[in-house]
Amino acid sequence: MSSGNPIGVFDSGIGGLTVFRSIMEQLPGYDYIYLGDNGRAPYGNRSFSTIHQYTWECVQWMFEQGCPLVILACNTASAKALRTIQQQDLPVQNANKRVLGVIRPTAEVIGNYTQSNKIGVLGTTGTVQSDSYPIEIAHFFPELKVYQQACPLWVPLIESGEYNKPGADYYVQLYLDELMSQSPDIDTILLACTHYPLLIEKIKAHLPRHIKVVAQGDIVAASLVDYLQRHPEIEQRLSNTGSRSFYTTMDDTANFDAHASLFFKSALTSTYVDVRKTCK
Amino acid sequence: MSSGNPIGVFDSGIGGLTVFRSIMEQLPGYDYIYLGDNGRAPYGNRSFSTIHQYTWECVQWMFEQGCPLVILACNTASAKALRTIQQQDLPVQNANKRVLGVIRPTAEVIGNYTQSNKIGVLGTTGTVQSDSYPIEIAHFFPELKVYQQACPLWVPLIESGEYNKPGADYYVQLYLDELMSQSPDIDTILLACTHYPLLIEKIKAHLPRHIKVVAQGDIVAASLVDYLQRHPEIEQRLSNTGSRSFYTTMDDTANFDAHASLFFKSALTSTYVDVRKTCK
Repeated sequence: MSSGNPIGVFDSGIGGLTVFRSIMEQLPGYDYIYLGDNGRAPYGNRSFSTIHQYTWECVQWMFEQGCPLVILACNTASAKALRTIQQQDLPVQNANKRVLGVIRPTAEVIGNYTQSNKIGVLGTTGTVQSDSYPIEIAHFFPELKVYQQACPLWVPLIESGEYNKPGADYYVQLYLDELMSQSPDIDTILLACTHYPLLIEKIKAHLPRHIKVVAQGDIVAASLVDYLQRHPEIEQRLSNTGSRSFYTTMDDTANFDAHASLFFKSALTSTYVDVRKTCK
Repeated sequence: MSSGNPIGVFDSGIGGLTVFRSIMEQLPGYDYIYLGDNGRAPYGNRSFSTIHQYTWECVQWMFEQGCPLVILACNTASAKALRTIQQQDLPVQNANKRVLGVIRPTAEVIGNYTQSNKIGVLGTTGTVQSDSYPIEIAHFFPELKVYQQACPLWVPLIESGEYNKPGADYYVQLYLDELMSQSPDIDTILLACTHYPLLIEKIKAHLPRHIKVVAQGDIVAASLVDYLQRHPEIEQRLSNTGSRSFYTTMDDTANFDAHASLFFKSALTSTYVDVRKTCK
């Protein structure tokens, strides 16, 4: 058993570590590498072509580390880069590699959580404006009504360590009120941002008990378990010594490590890498 | 009169527009170009060498547009890149050009505002951790005691448009309480971040009336008036048709324009530029 063929988990920053945590808990035996493109984060405001360029550079770097399979644990990259990578890049350059995102696996199952057929989606401004979730969910659950709400202050509240303090209550209530005012019949709320699980207790506390709050990590992990069962040609190429390595494109790795442990729920040590293809 | 030799005003993003606004009001006759490196913002978490590289690339681009003089209207670039540019880059490559920052002009006069000789400095985590203000102020006012407080949520509150709404009060009060708890005798508070002037009314409302709240824009503009009087060899090279142009390294210029008008207090239209020297 070599540790040379890990599963790659990618995010523009550190939020993807909440998804990685869930994947690791459900599939602990494989080798993993995590890459955060913190040196170029946040991706949210950038154009389609820039997000595709950055994401593809990171994915190629993970392929070079031996990954047969890369998970884009990032809503922005999944919304704006994944299709081009799957349809244009991979067939030409890496036909035997696979790249999966977080939006489709979520869309495939989210309809199973609701009785009212009305769900809420909370995300960053970029994710909400992209309409990726309503569009993708309609493929699998055309009868569902999807209500969206952008929560632009939640990521800053989380990254500044205020997420579990009283001031955050105002902004949790503010965005939840704006969502629920769109339809009082919403009975399921999807956290469509990898940061938001850190606020999940406050979110639940501000909602009636019958409303389910769904984080993506467990859905994506369950979907990966299923994917590997259905694709033995990929699964058999994965090494499984249980190793985990963390990489970031931010040269201040200590800063990454300090923030990352909150999301990963245990201490970690990262290594700086330069993934740029066009700018070495 | 040619419009070919504007004053350059640089920031990592859009905050520098508050400084530019003040400069333009005090010196309306000159030509100006503003450059925001939004495509690579925020600078705060980046290393010294990266901040220097990015800033120097932007400064060189402004030199190429004809600027004899560039103002770094950015606390991070002023703290982490200006000295290297002034001492190493300019003498070798552009000995007849000048680059000025926002920290030294502020440090030169801030002591004139206080009677108690105790001042507070509010800034981003990066600015506070750099200790640039206490170090620089000590050169001019060694008797001053400088108390610092990082306000990590103020920039997100401003950029998400929440700065003039009730939820912001909590975080204005929080950071001001933490600052004032360091010394009740503080009688002058410096806003050492170019975003913070948008919060100035809330800040004043949360403080006793005798405490002065000082924004950097007017100080930096007054310092530039003085500098140009003392340096006619620079002043005479400036063109003065009253033109203003705005550039950003973010490819989504509409996004820049929408946010920028809040800081600049009037509508503007920007043009995308790629300033990279090593990565065309």
